[in-house]
Amino acid sequence: MRHSTHHGHVVALDVGGTTMKGGLVSATGQVLIAERRPTPRADGPLRVIEAIRAFTGELAAAGPGTPAGVGIAVPGLVTADTAVYSANIGWKDVPAADLTALPLPVRLGHDVRTGGLAESVLGAGRAERDFLFLPIGTGIAGAVVIAGEPYGGSSSRGGEIGHVPVFPAGERCACGQTGCLETYASAASVARRYTERLSRATSLHQPAATWDAYPAAQSPMAPETMTAEQVVDLAMRGDPDAAAVWDDALEALSIALASYTLLLDPAAIVIGGGLAEAGEALFEPLAERLTARLAFRTAPPLRRAALGVHAGMLGAALLGWQAAGVPDAGSTWTVDVLRSPSVP
Amino acid sequence: MRHSTHHGHVVALDVGGTTMKGGLVSATGQVLIAERRPTPRADGPLRVIEAIRAFTGELAAAGPGTPAGVGIAVPGLVTADTAVYSANIGWKDVPAADLTALPLPVRLGHDVRTGGLAESVLGAGRAERDFLFLPIGTGIAGAVVIAGEPYGGSSSRGGEIGHVPVFPAGERCACGQTGCLETYASAASVARRYTERLSRATSLHQPAATWDAYPAAQSPMAPETMTAEQVVDLAMRGDPDAAAVWDDALEALSIALASYTLLLDPAAIVIGGGLAEAGEALFEPLAERLTARLAFRTAPPLRRAALGVHAGMLGAALLGWQAAGVPDAGSTWTVDVLRSPSVP
Repeated sequence: MRHSTHHGHVVALDVGGTTMKGGLVSATGQVLIAERRPTPRADGPLRVIEAIRAFTGELAAAGPGTPAGVGIAVPGLVTADTAVYSANIGWKDVPAADLTALPLPVRLGHDVRTGGLAESVLGAGRAERDFLFLPIGTGIAGAVVIAGEPYGGSSSRGGEIGHVPVFPAGERCACGQTGCLETYASAASVARRYTERLSRATSLHQPAATWDAYPAAQSPMAPETMTAEQVVDLAMRGDPDAAAVWDDALEALSIALASYTLLLDPAAIVIGGGLAEAGEALFEPLAERLTARLAFRTAPPLRRAALGVHAGMLGAALLGWQAAGVPDAGSTWTVDVLRSPSVP
Repeated sequence: MRHSTHHGHVVALDVGGTTMKGGLVSATGQVLIAERRPTPRADGPLRVIEAIRAFTGELAAAGPGTPAGVGIAVPGLVTADTAVYSANIGWKDVPAADLTALPLPVRLGHDVRTGGLAESVLGAGRAERDFLFLPIGTGIAGAVVIAGEPYGGSSSRGGEIGHVPVFPAGERCACGQTGCLETYASAASVARRYTERLSRATSLHQPAATWDAYPAAQSPMAPETMTAEQVVDLAMRGDPDAAAVWDDALEALSIALASYTLLLDPAAIVIGGGLAEAGEALFEPLAERLTARLAFRTAPPLRRAALGVHAGMLGAALLGWQAAGVPDAGSTWTVDVLRSPSVP
């Protein structure tokens, strides 16, 4: 492996719907500065653009000298130089030059694919050329990594594994389609479906004479405030409603991952996002079900993502180095960002 | 586009489970010779290997001078220089040098991906970089074409769209999995499911008093001898059993293609194989259903494959030219093989 001889640092920014994660990352992968700010999404797209511009400027000013480039990961439809569309943020056709006032080369990337790039170059996909990066959070989207590069398809609209139809006659998804993976298996859906299931159970019990016997204290807290993590925890402890909801989520994931495996033959499936924190409760039964769904081929190994919430910002740093003319940046980094003291 | 200056021709062979299609193809895409022979599959893999060796030798001897290379498309698991495994033919780890006695550079390819290569370079995918080639015949497999190249995945096992689970709680497939696309939508399955449906209807009617009234002459021929084409034809003419079977096939295809579209964002879906002959009865309702399944993005256009049964042999010719050191062969060909008098 050739060591890059470039010095200096780049500005890296990961723009999420709630939080922006920014940093300065050196040519050897050192995270010089890392900072979070809220995304002012409720104030409209112009305010978000201003906030991005301010954040990149202030990060650059805080560093030791002039940065070599800027990388920014954004949601929605995006090319290397334009944030084409995001329903979430509400913008349309924003040129990269509007997202930073710095007179530096800039490169944009799709949020999930930029995270996939980081896992590919620096993280759990480092040893593989072909894998799926699947962050399971509030929603579900994937980065299809082919020959080390996240692949967006013919019009950058690929990777929507959260909306493949896993139960074709199933529940209506918020997206308007029927039976999408996301409507069963995202963290938000696991929490929502458990709550819905309990209220259905309650309304069934209400007219019955046994209402007083309904064990209202069965759950440790009111179901409206449950998180997916708490539902998984309840399922592990034998709560039948939580177990049924978690079972549906695992079944939906196994179907989508079986389809992915048969179509694209990945060397590994790297799972990140909040639900990956479920650990054994997710990985063990999911690996079992995926194996059971496949008759004539083995299942790829399921791995936990290595970079956690930092994947997007580190991927944006790689984009920044690409913009600066150092396309092989990252290949020699030994990032241990999860334990790095410079990242809060 | 740069015109290749290479002269001469290559030996091209497409080895199917039933038929081998061989030819000599010039550097400008002229099909000098085209010939079919049965694949002696029933006589075992050694006999098949001998038949391939004899066929390539006789094709080479029939041509005007020494060929520049050999391209061979085979089923199963295959790399550029080894036929690794085929359950269908029964071979294991056959080196390319065993498949021809000619002292020429040889390149092997997977049968469906080689057909996809031909459709990509010469056929219905010529204008696209990213598309799915989906031949629907006795079975179903796909070629995932990415940046103009068929993509086999991390271990050459990709493209198995025939075995993605479309109805996860559905019928058992011959492969051992449940609810595979192929078990509803291949030509063999459409024929089989219609026959099974009629025999179920018959056995249901048998004990009833109305048995004599059962319209045994409803179908133009005995159901055991029906082909998929005839089932589709019956469905178009309003036969309710044929319509139900064809409806399941279309539904299964729309689910698999929705998943493919959401994951890989193809610029087009190129459908070939025997069932593509169904024409409007396939393309119109399938396009409608695919559009209906997608809420937040448009459906890619469905196109009929351009090269018909010649795709594999023409793709093998491209492999032969690659082996001969002419990787850009085909880019300037104007093959009109379907109407070419030199192809029987």
